[in-house]
Amino acid sequence: MEKVWIIMGSKSDWATMKNAAAVLTELQVPYAVHIISAHRTPDRLATMAEQAEANNVQVVIAGAGGAAHLPGMFAANTVIPVVGVPVESHSLHGMDSLLSIVQMPAGVSVATMAIGVPGAKNAGHLTAQILGLQDPEQQQRVRDYRRKVAERVVESEAELDD
Amino acid sequence: MEKVWIIMGSKSDWATMKNAAAVLTELQVPYAVHIISAHRTPDRLATMAEQAEANNVQVVIAGAGGAAHLPGMFAANTVIPVVGVPVESHSLHGMDSLLSIVQMPAGVSVATMAIGVPGAKNAGHLTAQILGLQDPEQQQRVRDYRRKVAERVVESEAELDD
Amino acid sequence: MEKVWIIMGSKSDWATMKNAAAVLTELQVPYAVHIISAHRTPDRLATMAEQAEANNVQVVIAGAGGAAHLPGMFAANTVIPVVGVPVESHSLHGMDSLLSIVQMPAGVSVATMAIGVPGAKNAGHLTAQILGLQDPEQQQRVRDYRRKVAERVVESEAELDD
Amino acid sequence: MEKVWIIMGSKSDWATMKNAAAVLTELQVPYAVHIISAHRTPDRLATMAEQAEANNVQVVIAGAGGAAHLPGMFAANTVIPVVGVPVESHSLHGMDSLLSIVQMPAGVSVATMAIGVPGAKNAGHLTAQILGLQDPEQQQRVRDYRRKVAERVVESEAELDD
Amino acid sequence: MEKVWIIMGSKSDWATMKNAAAVLTELQVPYAVHIISAHRTPDRLATMAEQAEANNVQVVIAGAGGAAHLPGMFAANTVIPVVGVPVESHSLHGMDSLLSIVQMPAGVSVATMAIGVPGAKNAGHLTAQILGLQDPEQQQRVRDYRRKVAERVVESEAELDD
Amino acid sequence: MEKVWIIMGSKSDWATMKNAAAVLTELQVPYAVHIISAHRTPDRLATMAEQAEANNVQVVIAGAGGAAHLPGMFAANTVIPVVGVPVESHSLHGMDSLLSIVQMPAGVSVATMAIGVPGAKNAGHLTAQILGLQDPEQQQRVRDYRRKVAERVVESEAELDD
Amino acid sequence: MEKVWIIMGSKSDWATMKNAAAVLTELQVPYAVHIISAHRTPDRLATMAEQAEANNVQVVIAGAGGAAHLPGMFAANTVIPVVGVPVESHSLHGMDSLLSIVQMPAGVSVATMAIGVPGAKNAGHLTAQILGLQDPEQQQRVRDYRRKVAERVVESEAELDD
Amino acid sequence: MEKVWIIMGSKSDWATMKNAAAVLTELQVPYAVHIISAHRTPDRLATMAEQAEANNVQVVIAGAGGAAHLPGMFAANTVIPVVGVPVESHSLHGMDSLLSIVQMPAGVSVATMAIGVPGAKNAGHLTAQILGLQDPEQQQRVRDYRRKVAERVVESEAELDD
Repeated sequence: MEKVWIIMGSKSDWATMKNAAAVLTELQVPYAVHIISAHRTPDRLATMAEQAEANNVQVVIAGAGGAAHLPGMFAANTVIPVVGVPVESHSLHGMDSLLSIVQMPAGVSVATMAIGVPGAKNAGHLTAQILGLQDPEQQQRVRDYRRKVAERVVESEAELDD
Repeated sequence: MEKVWIIMGSKSDWATMKNAAAVLTELQVPYAVHIISAHRTPDRLATMAEQAEANNVQVVIAGAGGAAHLPGMFAANTVIPVVGVPVESHSLHGMDSLLSIVQMPAGVSVATMAIGVPGAKNAGHLTAQILGLQDPEQQQRVRDYRRKVAERVVESEAELDD
Repeated sequence: MEKVWIIMGSKSDWATMKNAAAVLTELQVPYAVHIISAHRTPDRLATMAEQAEANNVQVVIAGAGGAAHLPGMFAANTVIPVVGVPVESHSLHGMDSLLSIVQMPAGVSVATMAIGVPGAKNAGHLTAQILGLQDPEQQQRVRDYRRKVAERVVESEAELDD
Repeated sequence: MEKVWIIMGSKSDWATMKNAAAVLTELQVPYAVHIISAHRTPDRLATMAEQAEANNVQVVIAGAGGAAHLPGMFAANTVIPVVGVPVESHSLHGMDSLLSIVQMPAGVSVATMAIGVPGAKNAGHLTAQILGLQDPEQQQRVRDYRRKVAERVVESEAELDD
Repeated sequence: MEKVWIIMGSKSDWATMKNAAAVLTELQVPYAVHIISAHRTPDRLATMAEQAEANNVQVVIAGAGGAAHLPGMFAANTVIPVVGVPVESHSLHGMDSLLSIVQMPAGVSVATMAIGVPGAKNAGHLTAQILGLQDPEQQQRVRDYRRKVAERVVESEAELDD
Repeated sequence: MEKVWIIMGSKSDWATMKNAAAVLTELQVPYAVHIISAHRTPDRLATMAEQAEANNVQVVIAGAGGAAHLPGMFAANTVIPVVGVPVESHSLHGMDSLLSIVQMPAGVSVATMAIGVPGAKNAGHLTAQILGLQDPEQQQRVRDYRRKVAERVVESEAELDD
Repeated sequence: MEKVWIIMGSKSDWATMKNAAAVLTELQVPYAVHIISAHRTPDRLATMAEQAEANNVQVVIAGAGGAAHLPGMFAANTVIPVVGVPVESHSLHGMDSLLSIVQMPAGVSVATMAIGVPGAKNAGHLTAQILGLQDPEQQQRVRDYRRKVAERVVESEAELDD
Repeated sequence: MEKVWIIMGSKSDWATMKNAAAVLTELQVPYAVHIISAHRTPDRLATMAEQAEANNVQVVIAGAGGAAHLPGMFAANTVIPVVGVPVESHSLHGMDSLLSIVQMPAGVSVATMAIGVPGAKNAGHLTAQILGLQDPEQQQRVRDYRRKVAERVVESEAELDD
């Protein structure tokens, strides 16, 4: 059973959230994807939170835009750590998504990432880091990835000279 | 049974929301007050929404600050019109509350008011206007109040001259 | 006679406001459309507000962008509930429209929706919910719509798997 | 008859707007003060605009906070130049007032000043400059004031040394 | 000699400022155009301000973007009323231009318009209104224009029905 | 050895960060506190990150205000999950702190909390949730705390009636 | 003759700018203070810029709030590096000051610091760093100061334990 | 050995930063370019700062977007003046980059430029001005450039007439 869930409110959020999935795949973290709308399927939200706990899910990555209640409401229904990704909204470019996700009241936390694609990718990285606390091989894959990225930075300087 | 509910996430919101109550009292609209936290009591939120429908509640006024999920989540659980009041938050002065309440996705609406006390008062006024659609005496009380306020504006000019 | 009016300041707002019309049509709520500019036709605004009351209009949906005075000024001229839609403006992406509509002073309320298309759609939904208070069949159509939308959310998860 | 009007929506705006009055007094420009609420006394707004034109008023200074419709609506009802002063609002510190006043659509202009006290003072200065176009003595008083202020700047440097 | 100047910091601002010119042309107000950069030609700014006074210029319309010092600095060098147009900037969409122009300290005023094209057009309208105070025919042209625009609003409603 | 570190850039941040400490204490999570300034002690930052890994620290809570580089730079030096708390800054009320912490580029994540005290408290809660993944007793304490808080919400409604 | 000038638009800015002076004193950099208002004494600005060049001034620190034209206009009149300090304004908390100073067009630069007191202090530090490029003893004083500050950070951790 | 470095976090920043390079080239200032990521290569950042001091680098121009820690962290590791360029970010258009760079705490300064291309160009200009303090020929090239630009402004007015 997958220990990580990626959830989002609508299929259109997948364009952003697939970047979380890609990082998880690269770091060899199995995951499942679910569409759960806090506003359109409020009952399903509670049911799915119960199911996540029953399935021993370890991290839930939740993407949402605009009023963006999904991450906070899922977090309210479980003690599993929830990582929130503010999807870039049309008019306010994700500033509304960011504030709606990050400004949670004391007692229920959402680990908030950057707006849009970089945030989705980092949701994957944070998840791998959390899983790595219990799994030295997973942690090593995070370290290896970091080393590879650092090498690419140095190489890119050489490319600039061309 | 009261046809209007004022709900809020914590007792500290009452300092703002009592202004909605005061307007309802002035316009002779009976109301009940409930504390329901979207994040701390998510189950109770769904139960209370059912109860509101069972009690034939006509309007729900919901105040919340920061991530401010209560109005939108209550609206997701009922077809009763929900009026949202962005309570002024500490750091961002209610801009977070406003965006979290007003930027709802298509399908579930929250009738959003101004930040803080003026918004709470106007939640009372809008409620009276909605009830007035079915109750000519209620509508007349709204008109009377407006006339009285207009007279006070004119009188205040005279006071300025003093 | 239609019990709902959609008003806006210029023909160019129709690109946004037609989304309110589409929702009203789907929920079988008849409506009329009027172009009323608070700034360019201030007299007409007062006359039309009187006419709306004479025609027993139940809800007025008002869209406006930028300084966006139309919803608030129409609301000042009537006790009919006014639903405001902040049309996305060119430079500030509707943040000016939103603040100009929502930050009404105590005494005159505008039920403010999200910026742009989602807000226009929700103006239709809120209107149907208000009318549903007096009309059980209308309320049932709102419930049916919600159920249909919820089913679509669940179906979309399956599509994602493809 | 005074050729300048200072108008505002409520007596509480006088704390800001009296600074416009003080500058007008210093520059020997007679003025009248009126309280006109765009939202609470919409009829009076149109009547007063007619009266201003009948009285040959040359400049109208209008202060307002929050949704701040007064300057724009008064401007919509007259061809007299309207100078708008965004009164500092409680939650958003006048950013809402500023955007609601300055973001007028093409066709109806409001000469917008800074938020709060500096803006109120400058409304007095701009008014004197506009009147000065027809009145060389008035224009000379503006020049004299500027010279005096410039001298004070130089003197203040000496005070700093103390 | 033209009684109105349109000034701007660079040729690229003309795309916005030509809209002020078009309104002035429509309202039969002759104007001259000058390129004056507060930052690149600071000496010329002072010289041109003197020349404007010598030529009996009545209104200066100044467009600028970003740090946008031109309107305020020109206003500091003359007692002629200055109308400021915040040109839409690349990154911040004119919010920087707006604040740099409108937030003038007490003593030197700039009559600030909306960001971008609507603001440029309204600079033309305000100018015509100021000139109209001394010229009844000019004032009548402003009234005629307003009437024509109002008629077009009403006509556009009919077009919507098609 | 403590498995949680609370780090901050200066002693003045303790007024905020002690709220994280209080939650950890309540949930029986031992922690150590360190003052590490990204800007004033950049060498120490790298050394301390190594030490944290050597000590098998599981979660680092990092508070910072203004440019707020500490959480991101500590995260760049370790694969331990870093939870960032935007401390409320003087002029911009923590909006600068929030953006500097949350807008991390892809590859290095910071689990960002709300601005100020609620964020500090939630850093404690998230930490307990992450530790709870490996420690059923810890997870139970989180559940117990949530239940207690929910009961207090219901009780507070009764207090309101008094 | 002092090689550094601190300039500001009014005596009230001294409350902020004295913090620049204090850092210069601590780092043994002699300075002179002048009050120059871009708006109230535009002529003096050009004269003083000439005088600064004649006196071989090496760095000019300019503080200003609101529309904050002083740093950019002084920079337009000299090739001496200008360091700008956005003084915290009343309504917008220095966001207007910051944008007016930093968003300079290509060709004339202002080295912009943080809003308010930290920015004023850093103006002193940057000045000392620039002077240190030509003066090894000055550069050493900067290094010594940094070392002292770093030691204080470490000491403050111990104080926290008390 | 080049006395100026242009550094940036990733090759994609070069689209902005090449504008700094172009100005340096035009003003005959030799420079080297390095890619250094504060987050992906934190060790390299410290090493490169040491190398810059060893090479007697006089000015470091650092471009970064989003959380944008590079300029501040490089500045923390050297006493060489650091000029920061906020690269325009995707969602927030560089407002995050600006605040993360400019809001440095007291003790470590970054000379912050405008967002994006104008800021990159001005980084080149400021650098030339700082080098000009020690090199009269360099300073003369800055003066010559300014004169040429001023002439182009006057010429562009003539082009407008065409």
